[in-house]
Amino acid sequence: MNTETTRVEAFSDGVFAIAITLLILEIKVPREDAAGPLAAQLVRLWPSYLAFLASFANIGVMWLNHHRLFGLIRRSDDGLVGLNLLLLLGVTFVPFPTAVLAEHLLGHEQRTAGLLYAGTFVGLAVVFNLLWRYVVRKKLCAEHADVPSITRQYAFGPVFYAATAAVAWYSATACLVVSGLLAVYFALPPRLWRDA
Amino acid sequence: MNTETTRVEAFSDGVFAIAITLLILEIKVPREDAAGPLAAQLVRLWPSYLAFLASFANIGVMWLNHHRLFGLIRRSDDGLVGLNLLLLLGVTFVPFPTAVLAEHLLGHEQRTAGLLYAGTFVGLAVVFNLLWRYVVRKKLCAEHADVPSITRQYAFGPVFYAATAAVAWYSATACLVVSGLLAVYFALPPRLWRDA
Amino acid sequence: MNTETTRVEAFSDGVFAIAITLLILEIKVPREDAAGPLAAQLVRLWPSYLAFLASFANIGVMWLNHHRLFGLIRRSDDGLVGLNLLLLLGVTFVPFPTAVLAEHLLGHEQRTAGLLYAGTFVGLAVVFNLLWRYVVRKKLCAEHADVPSITRQYAFGPVFYAATAAVAWYSATACLVVSGLLAVYFALPPRLWRDA
Amino acid sequence: MNTETTRVEAFSDGVFAIAITLLILEIKVPREDAAGPLAAQLVRLWPSYLAFLASFANIGVMWLNHHRLFGLIRRSDDGLVGLNLLLLLGVTFVPFPTAVLAEHLLGHEQRTAGLLYAGTFVGLAVVFNLLWRYVVRKKLCAEHADVPSITRQYAFGPVFYAATAAVAWYSATACLVVSGLLAVYFALPPRLWRDA
Repeated sequence: MNTETTRVEAFSDGVFAIAITLLILEIKVPREDAAGPLAAQLVRLWPSYLAFLASFANIGVMWLNHHRLFGLIRRSDDGLVGLNLLLLLGVTFVPFPTAVLAEHLLGHEQRTAGLLYAGTFVGLAVVFNLLWRYVVRKKLCAEHADVPSITRQYAFGPVFYAATAAVAWYSATACLVVSGLLAVYFALPPRLWRDA
Repeated sequence: MNTETTRVEAFSDGVFAIAITLLILEIKVPREDAAGPLAAQLVRLWPSYLAFLASFANIGVMWLNHHRLFGLIRRSDDGLVGLNLLLLLGVTFVPFPTAVLAEHLLGHEQRTAGLLYAGTFVGLAVVFNLLWRYVVRKKLCAEHADVPSITRQYAFGPVFYAATAAVAWYSATACLVVSGLLAVYFALPPRLWRDA
Repeated sequence: MNTETTRVEAFSDGVFAIAITLLILEIKVPREDAAGPLAAQLVRLWPSYLAFLASFANIGVMWLNHHRLFGLIRRSDDGLVGLNLLLLLGVTFVPFPTAVLAEHLLGHEQRTAGLLYAGTFVGLAVVFNLLWRYVVRKKLCAEHADVPSITRQYAFGPVFYAATAAVAWYSATACLVVSGLLAVYFALPPRLWRDA
Repeated sequence: MNTETTRVEAFSDGVFAIAITLLILEIKVPREDAAGPLAAQLVRLWPSYLAFLASFANIGVMWLNHHRLFGLIRRSDDGLVGLNLLLLLGVTFVPFPTAVLAEHLLGHEQRTAGLLYAGTFVGLAVVFNLLWRYVVRKKLCAEHADVPSITRQYAFGPVFYAATAAVAWYSATACLVVSGLLAVYFALPPRLWRDA
């Protein structure tokens, strides 16, 4: 268990894959006896679609960064496995604030729902930082890893997600849009736009 | 992350496997206090079975093509991972239009439900084309890959699924049957019938 | 895609693992405002526990046999992948008849529910035979595979499960118990009892 | 099937990952038309969060110990696969007692719910012991494995979880907290605190 990360990655991939797929269960199917045309009912579900998209994007980008991070890690130890479980705890929690925000996106309680949503991702960004700092301190990563720039990039995570919490103070919808864009930004690094 | 596709495939396999298995949760179990004999209630659920079958077949065949495609890909990059996440977004969405169509298959809103269903697969077929064209342009695939014929085959995807949308204009049930047959056709290539 | 079975096995493992884990969602949690003591309510759920156990055992033993079978398969082809998807279709369907049987185990419709349940496993056993015969005919399996004895063992599958359907004609509970024992019997081969 | 454990581990990882992720589905999303402020409703859900945390921690630590255990196992046989399925049966069951305990944590039936919860983990700890003793007796583990100390450590499992059952006699909340701490204790071995 001290030298390889394969099974930790396999288990993590499973948790990421399930959490990202369970999001769809929160979108309620319009029943046949509901009032009004189906098209209108489907359109009225847009808060659920938006929450689904934003959470899919954020879990996807976290998986991507987890993938990149473990690509740099040369050995595992019990502390890393423990911190990784803490990260997965946050990932499995995401469907709950997502559903709460979808339910309350247009209501008068949208601020509370938005803060819960943004707060979840602030917490996740903090755990990513703890995990990376642990990796660096215990010298678990590959020689060629560019430690200072990764540390700097990760340090911005909690700050950016805290900014989405500030946005949630004014509009839960805006918070969701900003969260989604933040994820897209992290997922598609500049060089994609340069080379593609 | 630039040279191997193993973990991208593992994560994708997880998402495909979960999305295909969650479909069963949309078939509602007849309760003991429901009116009429159980056999009749089970038979009346046929729209749910048909939707389950068609979506299972389509997700299955997309997994199969994803498997074939990644068998040709020699290296991965951030753009490929990003486009793959877009594809998985579509895959995780499938249980929703499936449930909507099962609920409305015999109702007067079947056209809307059928268009949502067919539209989802048109979107997925478009993303498959974007992914393949990206692979070709960035030269990520193996030397021996028969690029022109794969490009041609993929190009038919959106056209065929758009045809099922046209069918949905007349009958949601026919749309579902055609979608299912389309998947079976893609899953079982001609040489199976020749060699088996 | 013609020479390795790794990703087919990974996808299949995912589907088996999810189908076996989703079974628990069908056991309804007694609510706090329900009448009577909780202990009695938990005991009254025994049809759900029994159905959970029997289906867990049967999916588990199918995974085990899938594992054994693919351990003998040296190459894959499109027909094998297609038949494997047919098998997985049956596996993902299992939670539905399980829930139907748990709901109706003590009611007057238990015969219908039992036949649906047993019929599902007869179908799965037939697909296992189709898969194995395809493997043999296409010479996809390893040289050392003991083809005649595997063919004989598989041929008993549909017969045994059809016998549980006959049992279901008299008692759904007995059908469930027999199905569970059948799975345990297949899972724990004689040599375990000899060597352990 | 006699010489490698890879696919057994992959299937087990899938089951652990799904069971741990399904826990979130048991936390009920407050609906928009519910009485009182959303913040208060979210706070009132604390029994669900606590049950989620404790079960996540316990499934996580079981995965960790499964990972450690299979790291020592050099070959697999049918008995090991059978006992592993028994262990996975317990793991997939965990979401049910978790949901029962969350529902009844503050009610007058908390003792019954707590005993069900603690009893589930006593059972799992017993199966871990059976699995390990089987591995030792059949000489399936690596030469370097420190058999006596692992045997001793595992033997404490049922005792410790039985102690949480005794705690449940007095308070279900305390039982949950102790279960969670027990998992954290097992997950983070002493050397982490020494080296970190």
